[in-house]
Amino acid sequence: DDKAASILKTSDPYADDPIRHPALKVNSQRPFNAEPPPELLTENYITPNPIFFTRNHLPVPNLDPDTYRLHVVGPPGGQSLCLSLDDLYQFPKHEITVTLQCAGNRRSEMTRFKEVRGLEWSAGAISTARWAGARLCDVLSQAGHHLSETEAHVCFEGLDSDPTGTAYGASIPLARAMDPEAERRDYKGFSPSVDWDTVDFDSAPSIQELPVQSAITQPKDGETIESGEVTVKGYAWSGGGRAVVRVDVSLDGGLTWQVAELDGEEQRARKAWAWRLWQLQAPVPAGKKELNIVCKAVDDSYNVQPDTVAPIWNLRGVLSNAWHHVHVHVAP
Amino acid sequence: DDKAASILKTSDPYADDPIRHPALKVNSQRPFNAEPPPELLTENYITPNPIFFTRNHLPVPNLDPDTYRLHVVGPPGGQSLCLSLDDLYQFPKHEITVTLQCAGNRRSEMTRFKEVRGLEWSAGAISTARWAGARLCDVLSQAGHHLSETEAHVCFEGLDSDPTGTAYGASIPLARAMDPEAERRDYKGFSPSVDWDTVDFDSAPSIQELPVQSAITQPKDGETIESGEVTVKGYAWSGGGRAVVRVDVSLDGGLTWQVAELDGEEQRARKAWAWRLWQLQAPVPAGKKELNIVCKAVDDSYNVQPDTVAPIWNLRGVLSNAWHHVHVHVAP
Ligand SMILES: [Mo]
Ligand SMILES: [Mo]
Repeated sequence: DDKAASILKTSDPYADDPIRHPALKVNSQRPFNAEPPPELLTENYITPNPIFFTRNHLPVPNLDPDTYRLHVVGPPGGQSLCLSLDDLYQFPKHEITVTLQCAGNRRSEMTRFKEVRGLEWSAGAISTARWAGARLCDVLSQAGHHLSETEAHVCFEGLDSDPTGTAYGASIPLARAMDPEAERRDYKGFSPSVDWDTVDFDSAPSIQELPVQSAITQPKDGETIESGEVTVKGYAWSGGGRAVVRVDVSLDGGLTWQVAELDGEEQRARKAWAWRLWQLQAPVPAGKKELNIVCKAVDDSYNVQPDTVAPIWNLRGVLSNAWHHVHVHVAP
Repeated sequence: DDKAASILKTSDPYADDPIRHPALKVNSQRPFNAEPPPELLTENYITPNPIFFTRNHLPVPNLDPDTYRLHVVGPPGGQSLCLSLDDLYQFPKHEITVTLQCAGNRRSEMTRFKEVRGLEWSAGAISTARWAGARLCDVLSQAGHHLSETEAHVCFEGLDSDPTGTAYGASIPLARAMDPEAERRDYKGFSPSVDWDTVDFDSAPSIQELPVQSAITQPKDGETIESGEVTVKGYAWSGGGRAVVRVDVSLDGGLTWQVAELDGEEQRARKAWAWRLWQLQAPVPAGKKELNIVCKAVDDSYNVQPDTVAPIWNLRGVLSNAWHHVHVHVAP
């Protein structure tokens, strides 16, 4: 058995992956991709680390804190940096509460309309943490970069690499400029009429901000609830620092709406990086045997979620932010 | 007759209003509110001045360029400015192409669902101009204001005033902060469940950015088109400097979509203040006696327009940005 484990370890690039929380709903084992179940997701404003949704493209790299180095390529003609963790600790420490959402969150609802390529995320590919550390702009400044170069991108390379040694990477624009060359096959949104035979990746910009989003986490789809009163809970969030200003909840499939109560931390206008949790306590309409519960959020640009998923369907199954539905039965 | 005109002039605060272009569709004579007809609206990327949509709350003030003064209240303890037009011409001149849209554009579609308070705008309460002049920040700087005061608002008072002498006014936040006291009864969006008996004006933030918007200007609703090929034209725009990245057009009420061609000037990412005009040339599906033409736009935050108007209905009839429909007959 020891020998078997050892063989497994040398032949399996995923053998060193960390142990995962058993509550996670696994969408893919290798690479490991998983989301927390909805009823746990909104129990806490800050998502507990063990159930934070996990999105990997490759095996999880094994870091040695003593030998770890961050390489920062300097500007043309300038010097590059090689920073240890201790070097990074010398920078001023900043803290910020931020919600991360996978662009494919709620993709499974798109798949129900028409097949897409991607992992079958339910509504749990989103989580919130309190992040702390050196600011990117401070590190780049030390390397001699000037943040006024509006056309520049910062390219990140992960320690996780594929069998050819190519590191997983992403980039963000400085001053949010677009660089179509660097991001040609990045996550992008397309018209529902575009398929893999007709897609022109140059015709759309990379997704840099996600649209307004919300989902119901309680009750669960298919559950039987007591008559009397129902408590509906969920999350709402918007990209680009936009704040959530309202969540509407319907118990009749969208015919009538009630305004949910927003919980969690207050958001700063234009700097709202984290989600709002919300809830609604409402009487179960008398005589109803089932409820079609719906939620939709509004952000501070007054953007709203689209009513249905088919008109926003796209071949990558990203940007799935139509109204979220949960069907429940009412106990007699 | 001269006497009659003179009496009219002294008794009618609107008697000095300018002469208007006869093509304008008038929604209210006093105060004068009017919009260009759709087929004229998208003939030019820059809207000709005479048909630029007109939104007044009060009579148009008569300006004497020689005696006109702009008063700028200085910061606490500081000095105030009193600037003539010649003084304003001394500031560096900046030019920018910007689309203005009334928050009530397309309100008439909300009214069809349920009554609202406001003027019956069709899809023409939007126009584009090349604006030029002194920058607000330069003028405020000269008055000693520091733009880093993140909680401050700039309050504007118009020369147009009501019978009590109260000037029409508005405010914008410096650094986009919110000031609920200053704007309590401002344009705001509410849930469709909120009516005039239940509205709490403190519960919503003022509209500072409008959501993604588009409309069809050609063909006209109710028109009979030739079979063979149809040309669909319109405009698309989004608030907050967000660019339009795509317009989808449907000829079958939203079941299938085609991507329109974007005309007009290229937009800078995050600084897209003007609209895009768009068009689609498409075969008229054989055997169809009528078409339900629909458009919807996507902005660079990948926000989309909602499918239907009822779920975004609000008591002021603002933020009406559901899919735009035009029904046409096909000549046999
Ligand atoms: Mo993702
Ligand atoms: Mo307006």
